[in-house]
Amino acid sequence: MKNKTIGFVGLGRMGANMARCLNEKGYTVTALFDINRSVATDLAAEVGATAYKSLVEVTANADIILTVVTNDDAMDAIFFGDDNLFTGAAGRTFINCATLTPAVHTKLEEAATKIGATCLEACMASSIPQARSGELFLMIGGHETDFNANKPLLDDLSKALHYVGAAGKASEVKALVNMVMNINTAALAEGLGIGDALGIDLKMLCDIFSQTGANSRVLETDAEDMILRDHDCYFSVSHAAKDSGIALGLAAAQGIQTPLAQATFDQYTKLTEMGKGELDKSGIAELTFKGRS
Amino acid sequence: MKNKTIGFVGLGRMGANMARCLNEKGYTVTALFDINRSVATDLAAEVGATAYKSLVEVTANADIILTVVTNDDAMDAIFFGDDNLFTGAAGRTFINCATLTPAVHTKLEEAATKIGATCLEACMASSIPQARSGELFLMIGGHETDFNANKPLLDDLSKALHYVGAAGKASEVKALVNMVMNINTAALAEGLGIGDALGIDLKMLCDIFSQTGANSRVLETDAEDMILRDHDCYFSVSHAAKDSGIALGLAAAQGIQTPLAQATFDQYTKLTEMGKGELDKSGIAELTFKGRS
Repeated sequence: MKNKTIGFVGLGRMGANMARCLNEKGYTVTALFDINRSVATDLAAEVGATAYKSLVEVTANADIILTVVTNDDAMDAIFFGDDNLFTGAAGRTFINCATLTPAVHTKLEEAATKIGATCLEACMASSIPQARSGELFLMIGGHETDFNANKPLLDDLSKALHYVGAAGKASEVKALVNMVMNINTAALAEGLGIGDALGIDLKMLCDIFSQTGANSRVLETDAEDMILRDHDCYFSVSHAAKDSGIALGLAAAQGIQTPLAQATFDQYTKLTEMGKGELDKSGIAELTFKGRS
Repeated sequence: MKNKTIGFVGLGRMGANMARCLNEKGYTVTALFDINRSVATDLAAEVGATAYKSLVEVTANADIILTVVTNDDAMDAIFFGDDNLFTGAAGRTFINCATLTPAVHTKLEEAATKIGATCLEACMASSIPQARSGELFLMIGGHETDFNANKPLLDDLSKALHYVGAAGKASEVKALVNMVMNINTAALAEGLGIGDALGIDLKMLCDIFSQTGANSRVLETDAEDMILRDHDCYFSVSHAAKDSGIALGLAAAQGIQTPLAQATFDQYTKLTEMGKGELDKSGIAELTFKGRS
């Protein structure tokens, strides 16, 4: 697939590092766009691409366009705004990497089909280092034929690649992954916060958690950060609130009671309202350690 | 330590299997007691011990007595009731294995010291097969000298043995382990319940959970049971409610807000009130899968 030209829209730390990764692997990254134009200009110089002032120029100058924007509204703006990616997009492939409300992907696929373009949803369950090294965990939704056609590129971005089902299904799975992860993170913050207040050695407590039914992936990734108050952001509090909110919406539509997801959403929303939305998700411990807030 | 005689009080599935284990390893199990007398009689025949009708006879006929009862009230009854284990207990060692409110262990240690007896708390974070095979995860609270004096026996019961601190500290740690485990279990039940309602393949969903931030020990132990509604009891709903309740008490005493622990306690309490307290903790999925309750 290295004869295809690649565009990127949304050059936050994930998008920028995916672009660097593909460039390094020999892809021709031609077209970049970010609402913060200097970010696009800097990256364009780094990878030998052009930073365009409009989205329609990105479509004009790339065969495959990866979008890595923040939320549903941003997605709506880049595909259905006055200046948009669908203009002149026949034959183009869009790989949409934001975590969105699942219905957005269905709508995008329908609109793309009408104009002869292709959309795939690519939900990522990894972070910045994996974006840079091409070792993302990717879940793909859309037509399976489109998945297969783009598999070499998706493989170059990922260490684990799952075709999940129709458009929207990958976002559903991603929302559930993050919902469960966020709850487990909130649980850990409560356990460590109480342990700290009781004067229990937290290193020993983590060691015991790791050997028992309390073990979890977030124990490995977040416990030390919670203890040391090292909340440099890999996955932000505000993203955690957003993703738990998406899952709550799915649950409500199905009439399922999810009090744990709700309590976790409330905690992350509270932190965001306290102005701590840009902390890492481990920052939830700021609410559960005595004397921290 | 195999020259010491061993007694057991409380012959539920944990206590009975610990007695079988020590018998098999060459200890002399002499004295058994259970409020269900036929349980004690049957086990006595199996391990060559005597089933006594009173607690005072257990103390009279064993050097080391392991108590494995259900809760604080039962503990109070066997040590401070009319017929009790402390009568004539000078020189005896009690190893108390129930998950109790931490303060109960402090009270027991004080009372034991006055009469020249020894108490250790031994909190278990494992289940029936580990009790049978002597591969428990044990956390010990009490005087460190008493821990060292009884270490050979404790080693024979356990695969992992941790001396945690003064009397009560092991129960605190155990309560936190189970609190976090219960929250993670409730989280998993919500994730799988929503996934099921959305028509997502749950085997694939579990596979994805296991490779991402949603991974946890309870994913390994409880996911399949939740999907198959196989709620044969290893750790009951009512025990989950009890242990989460102990943790909530610790948090409240420290002035820490723990909304996740509270929501989990509420779910397990609700199940108990629905008459499902004897299901395994995986039974919480009965509340989150569409059409199950």
